[in-house]
Amino acid sequence: MVSIGIDVGGTGLKAGAVSERGEILSKVSCPTLPERGFEAVVADMARLAVRAAEEAGAAMEEVRSVGIGIPGVHDPARNLVVRCVNLYWKDVPLIDEMHRYLSVPVYVDNDATVAGLAESVAGASRGMHSSVLITLGTGIGSAIIIDGRIYAGAHGCGGEMGHIITHAGGILCSCGHRGCWERYASASGLIRLGQEIAKRNPDGVIARKSGGNPEAIDARMVLDSAKEGDPDAMQAFETYTEELAIGLSSIVVALDPEMIVLGGGVAGAGEFLLQAVRKKIAEYAIFPDMPLPRIELAITGNDAGIIGAAHLGR
Amino acid sequence: MVSIGIDVGGTGLKAGAVSERGEILSKVSCPTLPERGFEAVVADMARLAVRAAEEAGAAMEEVRSVGIGIPGVHDPARNLVVRCVNLYWKDVPLIDEMHRYLSVPVYVDNDATVAGLAESVAGASRGMHSSVLITLGTGIGSAIIIDGRIYAGAHGCGGEMGHIITHAGGILCSCGHRGCWERYASASGLIRLGQEIAKRNPDGVIARKSGGNPEAIDARMVLDSAKEGDPDAMQAFETYTEELAIGLSSIVVALDPEMIVLGGGVAGAGEFLLQAVRKKIAEYAIFPDMPLPRIELAITGNDAGIIGAAHLGR
Repeated sequence: MVSIGIDVGGTGLKAGAVSERGEILSKVSCPTLPERGFEAVVADMARLAVRAAEEAGAAMEEVRSVGIGIPGVHDPARNLVVRCVNLYWKDVPLIDEMHRYLSVPVYVDNDATVAGLAESVAGASRGMHSSVLITLGTGIGSAIIIDGRIYAGAHGCGGEMGHIITHAGGILCSCGHRGCWERYASASGLIRLGQEIAKRNPDGVIARKSGGNPEAIDARMVLDSAKEGDPDAMQAFETYTEELAIGLSSIVVALDPEMIVLGGGVAGAGEFLLQAVRKKIAEYAIFPDMPLPRIELAITGNDAGIIGAAHLGR
Repeated sequence: MVSIGIDVGGTGLKAGAVSERGEILSKVSCPTLPERGFEAVVADMARLAVRAAEEAGAAMEEVRSVGIGIPGVHDPARNLVVRCVNLYWKDVPLIDEMHRYLSVPVYVDNDATVAGLAESVAGASRGMHSSVLITLGTGIGSAIIIDGRIYAGAHGCGGEMGHIITHAGGILCSCGHRGCWERYASASGLIRLGQEIAKRNPDGVIARKSGGNPEAIDARMVLDSAKEGDPDAMQAFETYTEELAIGLSSIVVALDPEMIVLGGGVAGAGEFLLQAVRKKIAEYAIFPDMPLPRIELAITGNDAGIIGAAHLGR
């Protein structure tokens, strides 16, 4: 038996067959072209699922389930994708639509949740009783895993740690509220710090790397400059890891997971980030005598979406 | 079979026998007198447990377990009470010491956790799949219940929601960090708001009620004045419920529990508080189309410590 995992992105659809042991047996992909509308995209998703099974040498009778990770919110009670901004989806019956093409069980969940599941079955938090994945990208995605299963809350809306409020009355967030953690500790938060430096010091390393264009500053530019020892960038990195630790420490006091796994673009800074975050988390401990969660980097990378989605419903 | 629940406070020890169906069959108590030292207090706890069984007409062979709720932290890995400030306990082997007197299984957990368990077995959140209890007292205590069981995290340190950071860089907390939620949304936070008003308006209702002594202001004074329509107190209450909602909304996005139960002194304001908090929580929703957790008041009250402790280990 195999399971099919589908990773839905705004630009591309990826699918793969995954064995019982969690190995990827095949990978296929196509562009999303979301402007074609919901039905056309789902038809392609179903086609990709069939091709992924074929390329793995599995008949559809040998497919246990199809799992789908979406950059949006699925309401399990109503069986609807409530919203999926990049694909212009709002209240669409994704599972029903997939069943027009496929008769196997279909599961849908948020992409950060799916990535958390991937880490817990085949990644850094494999074998852990409890873990939290935090992805540091444009926003902050997150997933809570308890006893090897996703904990998504009573209505499927849990694990949205990017919107915990760390700076009451602070920067306005896309969710409409002020002071959400992701405004400060996502890649976007780091970029903002880099832009502030470039503005303050137009002859500095970051301003130079960006060719004087603040819009060209990305997280990597700031991280690399900090690694190279540029004092401005090191200061921005210090501020950034402080912001990261403020939210992570809230997760620690609330959930005390066995492990916190860091993924997403900023986690590309590797050990440099990890050492800084571990130090800060220790400083924020409220019970100095008690052990703290391990902090590790995500390792499933580009395959996380397929592996995690294939494990939905298992 | 019965279970014994023991509620350990800085001033008093209470114990009771609790039936399989969750009814309290007996209640006994004595002063704590913590300055006598750990051994003397535990000897009294064991005596109370025996008396509670006796008064319920149960032989010790009919006692399934003894559960203890402490105002402190227990490390299940080392079987030690790591700290319990009001009782001057630090790294004490409470379970081992109880076993000098009793041969039944002994369980220990934090008092807020125990109160959460009480609500979930015999109170407002009975029958709920997931719930979070928040007690609004001198600090903020909390407990996460998932599938009818306490979720305390990997090292038993979870559910300390009073120390999530809502105001990065804000007021210094007893834990040593700045901006913890409990500095703003506990009874102490409300009292601080009342004191600020009394200072600003020395002829106002709150200043008058306190006899001009800011130290005499308590949470009830502010709540009652707000209920009576005093504009200053209403403003303080508005600010307070905003602070409360900021932390509660972080719990909603992270955990999406079926229900949040409010207990502790401030919850004595009843429907007045409840209506205000429900309104604020709806304003803070990040998925407007999705259902929100129910918000209710704790109902087990003074018996929560005994009922919850008796359910530890069940």
